[in-house]
Order: sequence, then structure tokens, then C-alpha cells
Amino acid sequence: MPRFAFRLAYNGRRFQGWQSQPGGQTIQDKVEKAFSVICREHIRIHASGRTDAGVHALGQIIHCDLPENKKNVNWMRALNSLLPEDICMTGKWRVADDFHARKWAISKKYSYTFWTEPRFVLPQRRPFVWPAGELNAQEICMACSYLQGSLDFASFMNSGTPVSSTVRTVFRTEIKSACARELTLHISANGFLKQMVRNIAGLLYAVGKEKISPGHIPAILAARDRSKAPATAPPQGLCLLEVSYPSCN
Amino acid sequence: MPRFAFRLAYNGRRFQGWQSQPGGQTIQDKVEKAFSVICREHIRIHASGRTDAGVHALGQIIHCDLPENKKNVNWMRALNSLLPEDICMTGKWRVADDFHARKWAISKKYSYTFWTEPRFVLPQRRPFVWPAGELNAQEICMACSYLQGSLDFASFMNSGTPVSSTVRTVFRTEIKSACARELTLHISANGFLKQMVRNIAGLLYAVGKEKISPGHIPAILAARDRSKAPATAPPQGLCLLEVSYPSCN
Repeated sequence: MPRFAFRLAYNGRRFQGWQSQPGGQTIQDKVEKAFSVICREHIRIHASGRTDAGVHALGQIIHCDLPENKKNVNWMRALNSLLPEDICMTGKWRVADDFHARKWAISKKYSYTFWTEPRFVLPQRRPFVWPAGELNAQEICMACSYLQGSLDFASFMNSGTPVSSTVRTVFRTEIKSACARELTLHISANGFLKQMVRNIAGLLYAVGKEKISPGHIPAILAARDRSKAPATAPPQGLCLLEVSYPSCN
Repeated sequence: MPRFAFRLAYNGRRFQGWQSQPGGQTIQDKVEKAFSVICREHIRIHASGRTDAGVHALGQIIHCDLPENKKNVNWMRALNSLLPEDICMTGKWRVADDFHARKWAISKKYSYTFWTEPRFVLPQRRPFVWPAGELNAQEICMACSYLQGSLDFASFMNSGTPVSSTVRTVFRTEIKSACARELTLHISANGFLKQMVRNIAGLLYAVGKEKISPGHIPAILAARDRSKAPATAPPQGLCLLEVSYPSCN
């Protein structure tokens, strides 16, 4: 069966995260169901990584093997007509038979958006932001400069699946401001530990509230101890923006 | 009782429009209820104008008279804690005792957003756009130039409340593109007839689909006949951006 990759976007608000669960209220369940309706057999999909409950995506990547006899299907149209309106396929391409959406990924990029107006949150933005109140943007920008390069992020990893190394290479950590009421962290790395971006967002929140000085960040990293870093930021500010693969794909 | 104006934003998706109705699923009902809970008496609010079911606002303006004995209330905080999360107050100021949010308005500005990517609609944008498919943006821009100035918009008014004149002065009609997948009409005028913006959006859609030539617009206006213009565009693309008053307010 030929292998294909798909790019998809979702509003994670009403889902229990990516990974399939009894009850079926996950993005994986909804997407596999749509494929399976078209193929009349169960199609297993593989994502570049899980996203937690409430986390959004603009550029999640999956791969799956599709039956030969379905090669005339207009997959984008067929899937988007079957998927709930908070999930949509935004691209599709043929990949090598041994392509793997998670294993072949060489970098991922996430955004995390803080809402900084203390008096209200615009209803149009509420599902996609953390209402953080006023933040010192300059301090946050300075903090970002300490969070780039190959570093041991053990202090920013929540417990869960064991990993062989807690070192990750962060290519870029920067703050953008699309409007006066928002600050958005953009972070790209060769990989992320469990809840690493939300834990970094939690740190930046504490820095923005002037409870932690940016100069203290190297000590937090060196501690390699989750309890030395601030609490995890809530999921709705997080969005998986893109996943990159070697250019041969 | 002193009179105040409030600015508010809402996601109109789950409401039956602005105006109070039995059942209470309107924005006016929700806002009046929040005021009334704080004041322990019914507070009547007056908006700059109604919005239809499904229409959004970033800058709706209301006025109301608030009891003297409530002058220590932090209104923004109190109202925003009582309102559902798809409505929020974004500003408040004292106005003259005879100020009227509708009668004193000298201009209003709306946006109408077309989603132009034919294969999908991003879930994050779906509640706020009309999935129009590919549109000829140059033709739409040319059409906009015919829709400025003091003109008789009878062909763009849906039947309903009688009006003494169907002439309105449109200050500016322009198309902006925040990203490659969207075209947004921005239109400001001294006032709008019933569903005028959605009817203009319906015209621009037909122009963008190359079914009507921009040069034909003067004839549509001259006909003063609703049946000579294309169908009304759906509500979810529309947003009331701002309402302006004489600077003495």
C-alpha cells in the first residue's frame, strides 16, 4: 500500500488531545474514523507527535498507508467533508514507503500566546491564549536568549514516557507581538520533551511577572529538576505550527 | 442616574443576534442580565445598532443609566466576571446625560471576511469567515471603487423597518488581505441599511467569481431594486469593528 503524508490543522478545545482513547473524543480517533469510512477498513495513522488536551495545531503531520484501490479518491475533499469542523486537512503528498511522521522529523515549531490585557479577553481570541495579565516583555525577550542552543531541558520535562536523553537543540526562541494585547513565543527545536513548551511558557510567565530574573535561568537548567522551574502553562495557548523533514521528502 | 457608554466585543456564533427575544439567547439579554444582577434592578441598555444572528463585534457601543449608589463598582471587572465568555466589555466612559449610542453615532465601520482557499477552512478561522473559494481580488478591488460616496443603496437593503431615505454616505470601501487565504472588506459609512454590508459582500462575491462586472454596479445601484443585486452573504463573515461619535464625547 502506498504511503502518504497529510498536513492538518485543528482547534483542540473540545478534544481530549491527540492520542486515541476509549470514548473517541480525540483527534486521532476522528481522523482515523474519517479515513476508515472512505476505505471501508480500519486505517491507522501516525502523527509527528501527540498534542495534549486543549492544544491546537496549524501544521500537524501524519502518515498512513492507503489502499491501492482508492487511488482515485480526492482525499482532501473526501476527508474534509467527513471531519468535524474543528479539524481539517490542509495538504497531502506521497512519501517514501519507509517515511515516518515522528521518526523522520528533524525539527518542530510551536507557538505559545499570552494575552496581556488585564481587564478583558476578546472572545474571538479566548480559545487560543493564556490570559496572563500585564507582562514585562523586555524581561521575557531577555529570558528567551538563555533558552537557545543544545541544552539539558530536564527541568522543563514533566514525568511520563522515559527518554534516553533530556538534551534538545533549540534553534530559535523568540517573542513576537501581533497586536498590543498579545505576546507570542515562537520556539523551534530538533525535538521537545513532554510539556516542554508549556513549561518554558510557565517560566516566561514568571519572568514577565518579574518573579524570576532572566539571569537565573542557567541555574534552573543546571538543576535538572522539574521542581526548580515554575508551573506548567495551560494548554490553550499552545499551537503546533510546523514539522520539518529532510528535503528529500 | 448618570449615563455611561461601554464598548464590547462578542463572538456572535451561538446567539440569536443582538436584540432581546423571548428565550434570552441574545447578546442584549445576556448583557442586561449581567447589569441587572449587579444593580439588583432591571437595567435597560441601548446599542449603536442591532447585529443579526451569527454576526460578531469588536467595537459595539452601548449606553445605559447606572444607579448613583453603584458608583464604587468596578464595572469592567464585575461585568466580565458575569458575562458568558463569548461576550466581553472592553471599555467604559462617562457620557452626557442625553448621549444616545445609536442616535449620536456619526460613523460605523464593519469588516467582512472571505476565505479564499477552496480545499479547506482552518478550524481557527471558520467561525469568522465565509468559505467563498477562489476569488478574483483585482475585480473586487475595482468593484469597491464604485461603492464609495453618497449613494442610494436601496438595491442593497433587505425589507424590514421602514426608513425615510435609502441614501448613505460611504466614506471608504477597501479590501485588505491579512494572509493569502483571506480577503477582508472594510467599509465605513455614516450609517448602514438593513443587511447592507452582507448584501454588498454578496455583490463582491459575485464580482470575485466573475459573474458580475464591476462596471455593472452603477446600473445595480440605479435600479433601486433588491432583486437586481446578488444574494445576501452569510452572517459569520461580518464584524462590527467600531462606532464613532462627535469628539465632544
